[in-house]
Order: sequence, then structure tokens, then C-alpha cells
Amino acid sequence: MDHRFRPVRIEQYANLIGNEAVERIERKARRLAGLRVVNVSSTFYGGGVAELLSSLTLLQQTLGVRADWRLIQGSPDFFSVTKKLHNALQGADIDLDDSKKEVYEGVVAQNAMRMDLTSDFVVVHDPQPLPLMRHFRRCGPWIWRCHVDLSQPHAGTWEYLSGFVAEYDATVLSLPEYARRLPIPQLFFMPAIDPFAPKNCELTDAQIDERLGKFGIPQDLPIVAQVSRFDRWKDPVGVIQAFKIARRQVDATLVLLGNVAADDPEGQSVFESLLANKEDRIIILTAEDSALVNALQRRAAVVLQKSLREGFGLTVTEAMWKGAAVIGGRCGGIVHQIEDGVSGFLVSSVQEAADRIVTLLRDRNLQRRLGAEARSRVTRQFLMSRLAEQYLDLYAAFQPRFHLHRGLDAELGVLMPQPPAGPI
Amino acid sequence: MDHRFRPVRIEQYANLIGNEAVERIERKARRLAGLRVVNVSSTFYGGGVAELLSSLTLLQQTLGVRADWRLIQGSPDFFSVTKKLHNALQGADIDLDDSKKEVYEGVVAQNAMRMDLTSDFVVVHDPQPLPLMRHFRRCGPWIWRCHVDLSQPHAGTWEYLSGFVAEYDATVLSLPEYARRLPIPQLFFMPAIDPFAPKNCELTDAQIDERLGKFGIPQDLPIVAQVSRFDRWKDPVGVIQAFKIARRQVDATLVLLGNVAADDPEGQSVFESLLANKEDRIIILTAEDSALVNALQRRAAVVLQKSLREGFGLTVTEAMWKGAAVIGGRCGGIVHQIEDGVSGFLVSSVQEAADRIVTLLRDRNLQRRLGAEARSRVTRQFLMSRLAEQYLDLYAAFQPRFHLHRGLDAELGVLMPQPPAGPI
Repeated sequence: MDHRFRPVRIEQYANLIGNEAVERIERKARRLAGLRVVNVSSTFYGGGVAELLSSLTLLQQTLGVRADWRLIQGSPDFFSVTKKLHNALQGADIDLDDSKKEVYEGVVAQNAMRMDLTSDFVVVHDPQPLPLMRHFRRCGPWIWRCHVDLSQPHAGTWEYLSGFVAEYDATVLSLPEYARRLPIPQLFFMPAIDPFAPKNCELTDAQIDERLGKFGIPQDLPIVAQVSRFDRWKDPVGVIQAFKIARRQVDATLVLLGNVAADDPEGQSVFESLLANKEDRIIILTAEDSALVNALQRRAAVVLQKSLREGFGLTVTEAMWKGAAVIGGRCGGIVHQIEDGVSGFLVSSVQEAADRIVTLLRDRNLQRRLGAEARSRVTRQFLMSRLAEQYLDLYAAFQPRFHLHRGLDAELGVLMPQPPAGPI
Repeated sequence: MDHRFRPVRIEQYANLIGNEAVERIERKARRLAGLRVVNVSSTFYGGGVAELLSSLTLLQQTLGVRADWRLIQGSPDFFSVTKKLHNALQGADIDLDDSKKEVYEGVVAQNAMRMDLTSDFVVVHDPQPLPLMRHFRRCGPWIWRCHVDLSQPHAGTWEYLSGFVAEYDATVLSLPEYARRLPIPQLFFMPAIDPFAPKNCELTDAQIDERLGKFGIPQDLPIVAQVSRFDRWKDPVGVIQAFKIARRQVDATLVLLGNVAADDPEGQSVFESLLANKEDRIIILTAEDSALVNALQRRAAVVLQKSLREGFGLTVTEAMWKGAAVIGGRCGGIVHQIEDGVSGFLVSSVQEAADRIVTLLRDRNLQRRLGAEARSRVTRQFLMSRLAEQYLDLYAAFQPRFHLHRGLDAELGVLMPQPPAGPI
């Protein structure tokens, strides 16, 4: 989240996406002026969704859409149940017994009692507040926005949750491969980044030096970095192995910047095995510092995101945005972002990652070429302006009142039938 | 927080506080029927305030007041700043520089942008959302409800925050000794407990046995317990010392049930010194389990809350509610709850605590007498029904619209001029 009083306005995107695109978005927004949209999410998220909603709702406000954002609150046992739901949606073998379903539905019902959702449009995010719509008389469409990887959900849990989903008017998923059998329309909006947020904004060389210096990151050798949670699906151990192999041929400093999620029992042991593998020229940091992430992605010669499994991989987007040469694991949303050999490299093993590190460290021109293409790709497809436009199209498509009053034209291209980005 | 679908209705209090009180509350509520009240709190609280707001807003809803509860959202650095504000209000020597104030005010401003607070009454809780009112055109009174110990705030921080407070219509504090020099009315509402919540509801002997058995708590000897965060102000080390001294004369099992706050750097070292002091018959548990707290407070022969410093001390209220013989530290809100020698004991040292443990373990009649008086005191003064009534009085006093339309009578006694409870 960003602290400036003054929210980002769509005009600021003109240098990035062009005047024509800005005007098209403004035109669409004018037709929806005064539309009231309520987003509902849970208080206990990973930071990713909260970050996204924070930027998105502020941008929508500046566009004249009255975007509101409400949070549901729960007890620790509620969040322990919803954490299980989240993991089960991502494929973990967890089935909820009736007492856990009662906690889940009961806490949501309590939240509903003290929540006024009078609005033209309600967007409910992720599984935590999903049953909310059972408690309201609708005064507009209800959309379920799922940010979770739905490619292989646990069958029993999905059967239970899809009962709620089916009562919505539509659902928005992050990738086409998350599509499920559902009786309602499914749309696909890939995530996006705010290019003006502290994590992504331009930095001077002096600012980058200051940040890296503050955290004791040496710059005498090229930097190889991975910015990611210390979680085995992000494969930080594989990153260290690849770095050690690469170092037989080229010299560099490896920086792993991340944290251990408080609710991740495996995280601690992953972190400990990292420390055991540590050696000279391998730096492991657990700082929570947006400016450091920004500086590191900008200064690194190579940025890795060697995930074995990945929802979308916004850290890849962030690094590509900064013109970094990125090596990403061939999985999840990363393959939607990196075109192998064009805007970065995709790898499937430690050895492949090591080879790409060597190739890139030996060829600064290649670093620059991939980085420039990466930045251009993010500019075209993964900025918040694109996501804001998709939401405008969504509101327009599902708002007959606004259709009738203001007319609807042929500009709904961003919404249907596929997201604008990339090969599948 | 409680998971039952059906919220507690005021009629359920009739057996506890009498029909007359229930009818009085209902009468006051009828005059305010349809009143819209929005509570705003931060997502990152200790559980205490969230627990209280959860019960209170549901009870208000059943009384016909449309009580809403909104949460503000922030980045990690926002919460690191508000944590500092919280500690400074409690007396820590922390002064915020301008960049931290900018983060604080900026994030609140962002929240304000996407928050519709149209309502008859706004109640803002604690320092996190305090600057909110600068961003709204008022359509009703704004109240700042502070749950923090304000007896000795850091001067610079208080000067900064009181600038915001002064723009409110009134402030509600937890104890009369927290009163500050302010140009607005100050009211005092002590906290309260929900007697029907899982932590406080009646349990059968079998349920208590099951819970204690599940956590391996032996019942062959009387139980001495403290349920409290592992934080030096709660003096768990002093509890162990007192227990060891007492054990020279009487035998018992000591159970310390608590947790280490994630953001408390001292907590871990306190916890380690506990483990170092551990011996046979001393059990240290870190479970997050309302039913266990309930069972333990009900079965214990003696419940300690040997705090050296305490805001209000709701764990004391909870134990007294269960008819426990409580030994509390002579500080903060504990002295408003326990009348020494009548509804429990107050102590100022380890030796005193040890003596009281011995006295109580040797005299079951005394345990019962103090416990019965404790329960009766909580019933009269510290149940959620009393707090709900104080809020109704507050709304009525500050709602001229409702005055005019519905008449205001002499029943505002609960509100003014002092809280109903106890000696100072």
C-alpha cells in the first residue's frame, strides 16, 4: 500500500499506455459515473490481494466509480478454517467436517448482520466471505472474484463451496486454466501491478545505492536475486543450488529476500535449510521493505522466480516491469508472463536455472534485450489500468440500469471472451 | 467471537439482570429504533476489542439499532507506526517523526476515500483510525472510543493525537483515571463480557473434564491457574515463584495458559525464562482455545492475574464470572473489579500472592464465598447488557433528532456522570 495522500489518476498512465487508451478508459468510466461498487474481502490475506485492492479501488474512485472496500472479521478458529479452505482449493487433501462448516458459515452470518451492502454491484473476494450473499436481498449483481489457483481443487471442498458460487451472477478467475464446471458465467482477469506504488516506482541510482547499502548488499559483483516467500513451492533451496553450480563458471552475489508466513509450519524448516546451505556471497534477508524490493529488482543482473508451483507470480511481473532479466519456473501464471527466450527464460530444473544464470551473466546485451521486452510486455498487459478497464467492462455488462440510461457500445473488447494477455 | 447463527437477544439476560432491567433497555432501544451507528476499528487489534465489538454490535442489532462495523486496512509499515502510537499512549518513550506521521495520516486518508460512513452516529475505536473524521462531512456525532490505558501517555505523542481527538464530539474512555485535559466531553464505559460466548458459557462437568483431559491437565490435585499473555507486565515469572513458595505448605498443579504476541520482542525471552523455571506440577500451555479457557477458569481452585500493570483485565472479569476465587495484582482495572477480601484478593508482591494461594487452597469455603460474590459483582456490573445500555444512553444524549422525535426522559442514569461500577 502506498502512503501518498493523492491517489494515482488515470492520466498518469498516459505516458505508459498512450492517450488513446486513457481516453477510452475515461469514456467508459463516464458512462458509469456514480456507480456504487462494494468489494468485500477478509482481513487475513496474504498481502497480495490487499495490495491489489488498495490500488484498484483508489484508481476507480478517481475515475468516478464509488468503489468501497469492506473487510469481514473473524475469530482465530474462523481463520484456521478458511486457511484450510484456501489450501483445499489449491489441491490439499482437506475435507471439512460439519463443525468447521458451522464456524465458517456462522461467522460469515454474523458479519452479514452488521454489514450494509446497499450498492449497485458487490464483488466478493476469495473463499472467506463467499457465503455472504445468502444473507442479503440483492439490489444489483453479485460477483465472486477468486484469486486462488483453482486448477485442481479438492473434490469434496469444491463441491461444498461451488454451491455458494452457483448463487452468484458471475465469477472472475485469475487464469483461463482455473475454469470450472459452473452454471454461471466465468471471466478471467489476470492480476496487475500499480507502477506508481513504492514497490514499483522509478528510483534514481542514488536511491538504489542507499537502499542496498542500508541492508549491506555488496555491489562489487553482479547480483542474482529472488524475492519471494521462504516456502518450498518457491524453491529457494533450488535457487541456492543453481547459484552454486553457476558460480563454478561466473562470479556473483546471490540475494534471497523473503519472509516466513506466520501460519506456515513448513516455512521455518525451509528457512533453516537455507541457512544450512549458506556460504560466502549468499545473502538471506527477511526485511519487509518495499523500497528494498524495488531497488534490488532494479539493480540485479538476473532475477529468479524458480517456483515449482505458482498462482500468478506477481513478483515476476514486478521484476519484468523494472526491465530485469527474469528466469522463472515453468508453472502457473509465470508461463503467461514470460515468453521463453523473448521476455525472459522459463526453466524446469536446477541445472537449467544454473545454465541460464551463466548465459545471462556472460551477456549483458542479452540481459538488456530480455529486460526491455519484459518491460514492454508488462506495460501492454499487466498494469492496473488494464485491470481497471476490465472491471469497468464488467460493471457495464452486468448493469442493465446503466445500459439503458447511458447506452452501451462496442468497446467491451477488454472483457470478452478472453483476457488480453498471452499464450496458453 | 461466537459462531452461532442466532445472535444473543437481550431477553436471554433476564435470568441474570432481571426482567425490569431488560425492559428498561428494550424501552430505550425502541426510542432509537432504526438508528444507524457505524463502528470503525483497525484490522490489527489484540483480540480483546474485536471480541467486544463482535458481541456488542450483534446485541445492538437484535435491539433494533442498525450497528455496523467497518475495518480500516493498512500496510505493514502503517501497523508498525500505529503499534508505536499505541505503546506511546501507554507511556512508552516514543516520538513519531514526520515521515511516520505521513504514513499514518496517508493510509487513513486512503481508507477514507473508499469508505461510505453515511450514518446517524460514528464511533471510532482506538488510535489507528483516529484521523478519519478529517475526511468526512458529518451527518451525525462522531465519538472516539479509546480502549487504551491513557493514564500516562507520552507527552509529544499525546499532543499530536489530541489534536484529532479535540475535533470529535465526545470521547469514551475505559476508566475514570484515564481522563485527560480535552475540550470535549469525556465519558467512561468499562469493558464487559458476553456471558453466552464460548469462553464464558455454562459447561457441564463432563465438558470440563473432556477439555482438561484433551490438554493433559491432571486433576488429582487442586489447580492454580493464570490465563494471560506471556508478557512481563502479566508477571508469569512471579506467578511461578509464588506457586513454588506456596507449595512448601500446600500441594497443587499450576497451569499457565497464554501466548506470546507476534509483535512483542520481549515476549519470547519471558517465555524462555518460564521454561527455565518449569518443574514438576507446573504446566505451560500456548493453546488458542476458548473452551479450554472456560474449562480451566471453572475448574481451578484459584485463578491468578498477578499483573504489575493492567488496562482493565478482562481475564479477571471472565474468571470472576465463573465464580472463581481470584487473586489479582493491585493495579489498573483490576482494583475496579475485585473488592479485596470480598470478591477476591488483591496482592502487591510475590509473597502476598503465595500467602493468598495457601489461604485459599486450605479453605474451600472461602473459595466458594469469594467466588459467589465475584459472580454476583460481574452480573451486576460487567455484562454486555450494561455496556449496550450505556451506548443507548450515549446515542440518545447525542442525537437531537431522536430527542425531538421521541422524547428523552430521566432514564439516562447509566450514562452520567460516572460509570456504574465500583470504587476508585
